[in-house]
Amino acid sequence: MVEIEIPENHPRKVSLEIREKIIKGYSTHEVATAGLLAHGRGEAFDYLIGEKTNDFAKQAIAVAVAALLSAHHPVISVNGNVCALVPEEIVQLSEITGAPLEINLFYYRKEREDAILRALKSAGAKEILGTHDKPSEIIPELKSNRRKVDPNGIGSADVVLVPLEDGDRTEALKAIGKYVITIDLNPMSRTAVYSDVTIVDNIIRCLPLMVERASEMKITPHDELLKIVENFDNEKNLADSMELMKTRLGDLSKDIGLLRQKKLLGANE
Amino acid sequence: MVEIEIPENHPRKVSLEIREKIIKGYSTHEVATAGLLAHGRGEAFDYLIGEKTNDFAKQAIAVAVAALLSAHHPVISVNGNVCALVPEEIVQLSEITGAPLEINLFYYRKEREDAILRALKSAGAKEILGTHDKPSEIIPELKSNRRKVDPNGIGSADVVLVPLEDGDRTEALKAIGKYVITIDLNPMSRTAVYSDVTIVDNIIRCLPLMVERASEMKITPHDELLKIVENFDNEKNLADSMELMKTRLGDLSKDIGLLRQKKLLGANE
Repeated sequence: MVEIEIPENHPRKVSLEIREKIIKGYSTHEVATAGLLAHGRGEAFDYLIGEKTNDFAKQAIAVAVAALLSAHHPVISVNGNVCALVPEEIVQLSEITGAPLEINLFYYRKEREDAILRALKSAGAKEILGTHDKPSEIIPELKSNRRKVDPNGIGSADVVLVPLEDGDRTEALKAIGKYVITIDLNPMSRTAVYSDVTIVDNIIRCLPLMVERASEMKITPHDELLKIVENFDNEKNLADSMELMKTRLGDLSKDIGLLRQKKLLGANE
Repeated sequence: MVEIEIPENHPRKVSLEIREKIIKGYSTHEVATAGLLAHGRGEAFDYLIGEKTNDFAKQAIAVAVAALLSAHHPVISVNGNVCALVPEEIVQLSEITGAPLEINLFYYRKEREDAILRALKSAGAKEILGTHDKPSEIIPELKSNRRKVDPNGIGSADVVLVPLEDGDRTEALKAIGKYVITIDLNPMSRTAVYSDVTIVDNIIRCLPLMVERASEMKITPHDELLKIVENFDNEKNLADSMELMKTRLGDLSKDIGLLRQKKLLGANE
């Protein structure tokens, strides 16, 4: 794996630095090959939302945190990409909300599970559910390796946060009645559409904000938390994110004209 | 590398099959790690243009073929992703247009060059430029490994087809006066913006069409070919592709409402 130094003035510097994290996670076996492709898809959608946390995402973050804090038994699902991108922050969110971490891998390999376990522990995690040495329950609706869930974790959870999740599993979790929160840059993915709360944002930016919100909202009364959750309209949230992408495409389309003109002027100098 | 059988009714079947090609190319060392991420970005934009070859792309294909056929010394640049996705078609296009193939790798490794060389040869390529055993020229504007070009290839070319190219190199090729054709699903990438002809389409769909058009247009008189090239407006082409993405986002936004309603109905049954 070649590590590349990114020049300070590179137009895609932040995006390239995040990319380095995921590639590093791949070299340490946390991230699956398919996880690299998924990250690339995320990059494209992140570009379309302006690579910043927009108002609709901030609202969804507040609702997600309210749902985690007001749940009887919340659980946070962790996969390779989550672990490679935000190991410390996911552990912090788990501690503040009291939602245990559970490892769930679409492409299960013991080596991958061990690598994620190691990374989470070195990020400060004390207990981690869903590992191979524990008994596991089956989600009947699901045929991949991820049909296995920990009976003390997602198996008995009422609210689950499944960041960067695949569509089949999200549908299965909905079918067995879980309240599902996700983080997904593609508002049109099945996961985004089927979840109860979809945070359309880059997990790198959104997790620190979730940790911050969770610290603030920890003292919010239970009935107020429930009200925040009940008043949320995820369909509108998704529509808002797509509306922003449309606006951005319109704006960027004007920029392209300018960029090309600049190039032509440069060539004539 | 796990090969996965994709169920007939999977909503993303075609996209997943293309993905398998790129992952296979990765396992045989043609594709770089960064190439997997780039493919993911392409998937996102392909989704936004409807995963089909639109009219603006068909027009750009005709112009690209006209430019290749009317060039004095056209060259086709090949990298790992191109080789993994369309090895036969790129060889066919090279033969019909008389544009030799030249290997150009951003992340150069001899192992990768050898793998691509092998794949292109087994796809029928007779001569391949830009390999390590040949002398090479330097593009002064470029600092990565790809500053090396074959003096018999891109070094002396007037028209170059650089599919799935990175921005730095495209800018460098423009700076030394080449007429640049690219295939890029992201109409906002620097490569898309700086090229003279940008085919906003999936290379999997577009290469067979280019081969077909090249066979048809081979008998078109030289001055007619030049007219096709001169009349092309790449800025309008890019704007059209972005306009389509905007329209599609609007349409998909309506679908999301329907999908979510279906889910709710299903849950109540």
